[in-house]
Amino acid sequence: MSHKLLILSESSEKYKSLIEEAQMPDLVIESNPTPEIDILLGEPSRIKAALASLPALVWSQSIWAGVEPLLDPASRRDYILTNARGVFGGLMSEYIFGYLLAHERKIFQRLEDQKNKRWDDSDTGTLRGKTIGILGVGSIGAEVARTAKFFGMNVRGYTFSSAASSDVDKYYHGNNLPEFAHGLDYLINILPNTKDTRKIINADLLNALPPHALFINVGRGSAVDESALLNALNQNKIAGAVLDVFEQEPLPQDHPFWTTPNLLITFHTAAPSFAEDIAKLFIENYKLFIESKPLKYQVSFEKGY
Amino acid sequence: MSHKLLILSESSEKYKSLIEEAQMPDLVIESNPTPEIDILLGEPSRIKAALASLPALVWSQSIWAGVEPLLDPASRRDYILTNARGVFGGLMSEYIFGYLLAHERKIFQRLEDQKNKRWDDSDTGTLRGKTIGILGVGSIGAEVARTAKFFGMNVRGYTFSSAASSDVDKYYHGNNLPEFAHGLDYLINILPNTKDTRKIINADLLNALPPHALFINVGRGSAVDESALLNALNQNKIAGAVLDVFEQEPLPQDHPFWTTPNLLITFHTAAPSFAEDIAKLFIENYKLFIESKPLKYQVSFEKGY
Repeated sequence: MSHKLLILSESSEKYKSLIEEAQMPDLVIESNPTPEIDILLGEPSRIKAALASLPALVWSQSIWAGVEPLLDPASRRDYILTNARGVFGGLMSEYIFGYLLAHERKIFQRLEDQKNKRWDDSDTGTLRGKTIGILGVGSIGAEVARTAKFFGMNVRGYTFSSAASSDVDKYYHGNNLPEFAHGLDYLINILPNTKDTRKIINADLLNALPPHALFINVGRGSAVDESALLNALNQNKIAGAVLDVFEQEPLPQDHPFWTTPNLLITFHTAAPSFAEDIAKLFIENYKLFIESKPLKYQVSFEKGY
Repeated sequence: MSHKLLILSESSEKYKSLIEEAQMPDLVIESNPTPEIDILLGEPSRIKAALASLPALVWSQSIWAGVEPLLDPASRRDYILTNARGVFGGLMSEYIFGYLLAHERKIFQRLEDQKNKRWDDSDTGTLRGKTIGILGVGSIGAEVARTAKFFGMNVRGYTFSSAASSDVDKYYHGNNLPEFAHGLDYLINILPNTKDTRKIINADLLNALPPHALFINVGRGSAVDESALLNALNQNKIAGAVLDVFEQEPLPQDHPFWTTPNLLITFHTAAPSFAEDIAKLFIENYKLFIESKPLKYQVSFEKGY
């Protein structure tokens, strides 16, 4: 008996050719939804839209880490949902450390100096010896912690569950958030969107940061109380922020974040989903699937990650 | 018998207090040049100016890596010259990887997008899998190579002498420069200023690079044929350049580099000399000095490094 795969992605053609190249046994890639489809690979919102018409569905592999659309309690949960993990840690680290280095090494200020033909040889800062606080230390957070250690930083981690990374110098849990935030040079949010993480970055937490702190959000927009962050930036309670995710995406044209001082925004692009990476992960999981072994990176519909 | 130290630096007071804190035996820090001074610590040009009036001089510790002013053949060479090493590798890496990440992750383009309120969620690039070529793999180059490996890059090294870093995948020497340059994503110059390195980055080398290559110079301005680089940038033979050092510093106000497209300049600020680092290094060397042991980081007046 062969398995029937439907690919639901902007990059379907690329995924198709990568998976065909790998010559997986008993796997047929279908071009259209048919009742026999038992495997889905794709973007969570496209998977959600297809669920109702696929009675034989057994397994869906998300090409992203975040799977919010599929967590809707009104949505089907009678299939195995796996997400993409392991591949985003390095990409997220590149993003985070790109902006941390731009901040310390005054990369934007130097560009202004150049425009003004000003030879400004004042010293810049360094990451070495600085303290980074990571909200959410799963596989991505652990890689961020490893990168921070590489650059000689002190690392704090705040988690709801695991405390497994040896690159985290000190873990914090529960209502220890103000202690976690106290004295941080950088606060990085990587938390997924769950009921526990909603608006966890609020006025209290922002007030606990020193005024020179930089905040970076690569987790989910829902984790931030956007009004509180606007206040903190407008009143210089923190030095700056870099946001890749927002309550509403794309960010509405009239949203104040576009023009808030000391705020840099990107467009949910911190960790691009490269088809090569995800196809590799799908193939690894497919091999487990046909041997009836547990799949990697299964998502709990209850926990939401 | 006590040793007499004269500190010749912009940050003399800071050095004085750091060295006093360390309570070194038999060490007197003088405030003015006296004939009894046997040790100097400071910036190379200030050391040079003081040489003539210090008959008892035995050892000079430069607070920088580059010591060109002291290599002048007309200048005294009857003392031990040590420079600052070991401390700049991490700082240079921060600078280089700050700009590499800014380039790959389109940090400047995202800023323009933000100014234009444009939600541009096109993918960015990644350092992983890219190939970096390092011209000059001494202690700084080895640290750059280590950082490149951390980010999953392929590393080539071109050297005149040592080939000791295990983070370099392949070493090149002698007239192998075009082969070294072929297919590089990034070319980084860290070579010191010697007769062998003058204008080593010339039209031939730049032509051997692919058009998407980015060139970063943190070594010495003398290593670059500035006209050839201007041509390469103006004719889009390479994608861009980041220069921290120049033939003439400060860069003259009418120099075309200020306004050349795809060229970013900084102001000989890639590796700030932090007094804490250099004082530590001086103290380490002073302990060797009073035990009549060989000092660390001795500079050969002949080789120039």
